Amino acid sequence: MSKIPVGILGATGMVGQRFIQLLQGHPWFEITALAASEHSAGQPYAQACSWLLPTTMPAGVRELVLQPCQTHLDCRLVFSALPSQIARETEQAFALAGYAVCSNASAHRLDPDVPLLIPEVNPEHTALIEIQRRRRGWSGLLVTSANCLATLLTLALKPLQDAFGLEQSLVVSMQAISGAGYPGVAAWDILGNVIPYIPGEEEKVEQEPRKLLGTLHSGATAILQDVPSAAPRTIPPTASEPWEAPPLYLSQAPIQISAHCNRVPVLDGHCACVSLKFHQKPTVAQVIVTLEEFTVPPEIAKLPSTPERPLVVHQEEERPQPRRDVDQEHGMTVSVGRIRSCPLLDYKFVLLGHNTLRGAAGGAIHNAELLVAQGWVT
Amino acid sequence: MSKIPVGILGATGMVGQRFIQLLQGHPWFEITALAASEHSAGQPYAQACSWLLPTTMPAGVRELVLQPCQTHLDCRLVFSALPSQIARETEQAFALAGYAVCSNASAHRLDPDVPLLIPEVNPEHTALIEIQRRRRGWSGLLVTSANCLATLLTLALKPLQDAFGLEQSLVVSMQAISGAGYPGVAAWDILGNVIPYIPGEEEKVEQEPRKLLGTLHSGATAILQDVPSAAPRTIPPTASEPWEAPPLYLSQAPIQISAHCNRVPVLDGHCACVSLKFHQKPTVAQVIVTLEEFTVPPEIAKLPSTPERPLVVHQEEERPQPRRDVDQEHGMTVSVGRIRSCPLLDYKFVLLGHNTLRGAAGGAIHNAELLVAQGWVT
Amino acid sequence: MSKIPVGILGATGMVGQRFIQLLQGHPWFEITALAASEHSAGQPYAQACSWLLPTTMPAGVRELVLQPCQTHLDCRLVFSALPSQIARETEQAFALAGYAVCSNASAHRLDPDVPLLIPEVNPEHTALIEIQRRRRGWSGLLVTSANCLATLLTLALKPLQDAFGLEQSLVVSMQAISGAGYPGVAAWDILGNVIPYIPGEEEKVEQEPRKLLGTLHSGATAILQDVPSAAPRTIPPTASEPWEAPPLYLSQAPIQISAHCNRVPVLDGHCACVSLKFHQKPTVAQVIVTLEEFTVPPEIAKLPSTPERPLVVHQEEERPQPRRDVDQEHGMTVSVGRIRSCPLLDYKFVLLGHNTLRGAAGGAIHNAELLVAQGWVT
Amino acid sequence: MSKIPVGILGATGMVGQRFIQLLQGHPWFEITALAASEHSAGQPYAQACSWLLPTTMPAGVRELVLQPCQTHLDCRLVFSALPSQIARETEQAFALAGYAVCSNASAHRLDPDVPLLIPEVNPEHTALIEIQRRRRGWSGLLVTSANCLATLLTLALKPLQDAFGLEQSLVVSMQAISGAGYPGVAAWDILGNVIPYIPGEEEKVEQEPRKLLGTLHSGATAILQDVPSAAPRTIPPTASEPWEAPPLYLSQAPIQISAHCNRVPVLDGHCACVSLKFHQKPTVAQVIVTLEEFTVPPEIAKLPSTPERPLVVHQEEERPQPRRDVDQEHGMTVSVGRIRSCPLLDYKFVLLGHNTLRGAAGGAIHNAELLVAQGWVT
Repeated sequence: MSKIPVGILGATGMVGQRFIQLLQGHPWFEITALAASEHSAGQPYAQACSWLLPTTMPAGVRELVLQPCQTHLDCRLVFSALPSQIARETEQAFALAGYAVCSNASAHRLDPDVPLLIPEVNPEHTALIEIQRRRRGWSGLLVTSANCLATLLTLALKPLQDAFGLEQSLVVSMQAISGAGYPGVAAWDILGNVIPYIPGEEEKVEQEPRKLLGTLHSGATAILQDVPSAAPRTIPPTASEPWEAPPLYLSQAPIQISAHCNRVPVLDGHCACVSLKFHQKPTVAQVIVTLEEFTVPPEIAKLPSTPERPLVVHQEEERPQPRRDVDQEHGMTVSVGRIRSCPLLDYKFVLLGHNTLRGAAGGAIHNAELLVAQGWVT
Repeated sequence: MSKIPVGILGATGMVGQRFIQLLQGHPWFEITALAASEHSAGQPYAQACSWLLPTTMPAGVRELVLQPCQTHLDCRLVFSALPSQIARETEQAFALAGYAVCSNASAHRLDPDVPLLIPEVNPEHTALIEIQRRRRGWSGLLVTSANCLATLLTLALKPLQDAFGLEQSLVVSMQAISGAGYPGVAAWDILGNVIPYIPGEEEKVEQEPRKLLGTLHSGATAILQDVPSAAPRTIPPTASEPWEAPPLYLSQAPIQISAHCNRVPVLDGHCACVSLKFHQKPTVAQVIVTLEEFTVPPEIAKLPSTPERPLVVHQEEERPQPRRDVDQEHGMTVSVGRIRSCPLLDYKFVLLGHNTLRGAAGGAIHNAELLVAQGWVT
Repeated sequence: MSKIPVGILGATGMVGQRFIQLLQGHPWFEITALAASEHSAGQPYAQACSWLLPTTMPAGVRELVLQPCQTHLDCRLVFSALPSQIARETEQAFALAGYAVCSNASAHRLDPDVPLLIPEVNPEHTALIEIQRRRRGWSGLLVTSANCLATLLTLALKPLQDAFGLEQSLVVSMQAISGAGYPGVAAWDILGNVIPYIPGEEEKVEQEPRKLLGTLHSGATAILQDVPSAAPRTIPPTASEPWEAPPLYLSQAPIQISAHCNRVPVLDGHCACVSLKFHQKPTVAQVIVTLEEFTVPPEIAKLPSTPERPLVVHQEEERPQPRRDVDQEHGMTVSVGRIRSCPLLDYKFVLLGHNTLRGAAGGAIHNAELLVAQGWVT
Repeated sequence: MSKIPVGILGATGMVGQRFIQLLQGHPWFEITALAASEHSAGQPYAQACSWLLPTTMPAGVRELVLQPCQTHLDCRLVFSALPSQIARETEQAFALAGYAVCSNASAHRLDPDVPLLIPEVNPEHTALIEIQRRRRGWSGLLVTSANCLATLLTLALKPLQDAFGLEQSLVVSMQAISGAGYPGVAAWDILGNVIPYIPGEEEKVEQEPRKLLGTLHSGATAILQDVPSAAPRTIPPTASEPWEAPPLYLSQAPIQISAHCNRVPVLDGHCACVSLKFHQKPTVAQVIVTLEEFTVPPEIAKLPSTPERPLVVHQEEERPQPRRDVDQEHGMTVSVGRIRSCPLLDYKFVLLGHNTLRGAAGGAIHNAELLVAQGWVT
């Protein structure tokens, strides 16, 4: 089988570089187009891009000439690492033009007809693509990966939600500077310091897991009301009919989340302290076993980016730690540790994962693999 | 008035050095004795001590010869920065020998007849000294300051507890390395990292604020049961009577606390994300005003270490931050910021304070000042 | 005596904020004008400026409205913290308009008629102001402070140059991030890292000490040739005559310097390893004594910013260190340590000083004090 | 070919762990014995060792029981990561007992009959093993790898020494905390700081490259005088004759080195600014080409740990940097950058390499491979 040609929108930034790093030698995808802002377009990638990662820039992209983010790219699928305000229109244009768009941007994550995906969590949500195409008149498609911390958190919540039902989660994060892109956080602001605020982050962590853990239903009309916090959306110009009576809609999981997000002087790896309240309180042993035994169906396990163990439970009291545990299985494994009783909610634990691999570029590539495996992209 | 001669037990460590730094030029106290472990005793302080602070070692202590921690020190009051396992017996010996002991160690904090004090919070708890003396046969006395994070947290909880009553608090901390003493945390462990565990810390933060916010009652017998989590205590050999029917006892505040404590690469300053549930839920404006308008009675305000504003509420969304805000009013002010609704409990905010000043040496000196002002030490 | 009204050009940046911090409560100067770039002008300082320092923004400047950097400022002296490319024209305009300009920018440092000053090193160089005024037709004046590292280095070289003569110096620096301004260095670039290059820095460190240690002569014409490495300068439009036969000129000190400059993850404080070759090789004891006994004449000692000890020699083998020693005497003291033989040149040592206090804002204020003491500003 | 069984002395420390990490899957060697101090002996490795590296502890060593460092280990070759004071006697005992000892300790590095080796630099120095055996009566042998920084420096000096001859080198280092072992540097001492002193380091960097770059001669008696700075050595008890008229001796390279060593907050990777003076001054282009074209003979190139490029010359002005470049070719490549004129000596550049891989465990394994390839170990 020949590889599927893919492009990257926003190829020069921190996440764009992670896309390039991860796609080097990918068994299914081959980079054939790189796109960036107008002022970089026209330059070879090696010249336009200040490479930020400790591995070497792959030889295959050095001479690729950067193009503007317009729908003439020579590829069938695009990964989007665009800033959110640019992503909204650009991603729609690409989907309209027939591209499969796997976005890491937040612009469309809460659109009711756009699947917000983690292959191990909700692969069935891709069914919304049919609704999306019918509603928007797209020949392409758009799926999104979630906020980095929301992704890591939801992976740990998924088996617990399935087994016992979740009512509440209180999350306090300590997030790496790579999450702010580049140049991102000024050294003067974070060296030996904590910044107890990340603009827009807490809202995403409180909302996105509810959609990720949501349930598909058929035949109803309630979908728009199910995303009450989503801001009103522009109607794409190609939508010729009002959106009513969809054959399929998504109801969010009823878990309530409170998030407090902090920036700490860590390079890669978001860490979070999580307290949970269950519908049916399990024993602590049941929580541990449920997390340890989390597995995925064979059609997900065979995706190239699915790690052997999506979740790992640490036994040592002082683990997981970002610098020591973030790179497990190419940064696609989420670590959990210190599972114990919470005097207020039921249980609490520590969570860790890689914010620009599992939480960004790796997650979006994983979603693209899911689309291929399900036949949405060929 | 001539100054009161004071000694420091454990004078060479991180907190011992903070005692020396803070007592330089103190209006009421004068250092006349320094004590440390046997292997340092006999040496001049400047020779035995590797000075860790950015200010210069005060000239007045350079030539003071370190003594062993025995009850021959030429002073009336001792500050204890001893490790907890040594503190238990040593502090009792000093109190028995007639010294006033102001301890920063955890050994006796939960003893029912030992006041755990913050002058702005519970100055009336010194009344337990009478019980203590009667029970233990001491001519001296022993009071303790709380765990660093428990101190900072309780200062912020105090006005809210008084105004509205507190039911629950969930606390996730990001704590500075100075809290682990010296050499303490290895650079290899914490540079660019987070350690999600601090041995023994969470238990202290969950218990000590309940005692600090507790209420004195008279004439009952229940005191021992009121500290259910305290381990059984050795009976001091000088206690000639069983402890029953005390004229005074302390009931703990009913607040339930869940703590998760993390170490982060910060030098000084413990930061915490706090969620609160109230008995009577106030408005957010009432919470802010209550914290902003927190004042202390004149007899507390006049203590040399009482800051002009024990609590400061920050308006900027990204404050307080340890590196920028920790040194306010000589490290005795606690900062609060980002007061807002919590989707699970009622409200949440960020807390910051100096762990080795307000949270350790400064707090113990403050307690000593309270003892002087109340006439317990003359 | 009423205070001299002063203004700050570039008031919102890292060095501009240090000017404001240091001028709070200054005995001779009072801030009456703040100026910044066009897009900040018109706003109150507290609104336009993101305050970067751990001390609180002084109340006196919060409401001052920022003005553009034009010659209508209500003051007699301006401190310039402008970027170099803007500084060139702007500083000339202010000097022409009658202001005394004390600049920290590099634009005019090597101009042969502009004194490059450190009060403890070369206060007599202010005599060049007469030449400057005659040549340029200025009613005001312009003096500059040197590059941060050049300043710190020259302070340590001065007494050695005077006592023994210096031939060569090899300097390898480890420089703090505050030297790059704000936002300056990205956290992603420097956390746990070293950047072995600082654009333009090495040239300044190799050239500026030669001018600072230079000697004034009268009656010759050679001044322009004495700054061989200086790029050709634009002739100020007000200079009506060619510059020939000045009554006074400056010859540079013949020391050869090789500099290698590195950025390290330190907040404040430039550190350097320095090797020296002397004309007449002294003993190591003579080097130590010469540095320890460095004093300044009474007219310099009495300036408000002159530290009690401009140079301090450390005895401990592992000192000076930036975090521990940088703030001595309000950051105006330069520290030297580890003075010992160099197998290649004669001796080597470690040097440390505060880059934005002694090396920038503090130095420029010190120069302004010198101008007042010498009667150039009244 | 079956693998050679090897043991590790000092297996639980920072360098010991690097040995284990690097020997996992090694094509020629297999770990069959782990030894450590008495108090760890008897425990399984996984229980006794606090694993410090970000990769997982190899499964193959988890259950290996730690033994004391005595000559009953079931292996033919031992790697020594022992502290220097213990290494002296222990390594001699192992060599006497017939083991091949590849040491990373400093104890025997300057012994005139002990080869100090870097395979790319001086593989012929193993000829000293004959002298060593004859003199000391050993059936085994002892070779050593050099100090971490001396190793990195010498690799860069080697081709320049061969091509042009070197007279002088001035080296200022910025060294990673992993070089101090574990727990090593306290976080309080190094976070946001520089420590301008590393005990014993400068002497090693000034001496060891002279031996590494030295020349073998035959038939003379001068060997002991050739290591003038070496302290008097204990005569091994098995040496029955005075050491005279050896058939082979080593004269040191005449390069003079001045080193100043600093600790900086970097995890792995020693960086150094190096100035060089040549016997015959080449052009800068010749220096660059000589470094870029450095190759090794086929018998060295085929060793498993020899990197494809032992030296890499960076073109970008701000490289090499420890965090970005230290891991090239499994940490065995040394990076050089910013090659340019030095105003005092001839040229200067930046040097970077991995201190615990190329500079410690990797180097010692590389030496063992050389012994195998040359037939000293079978």
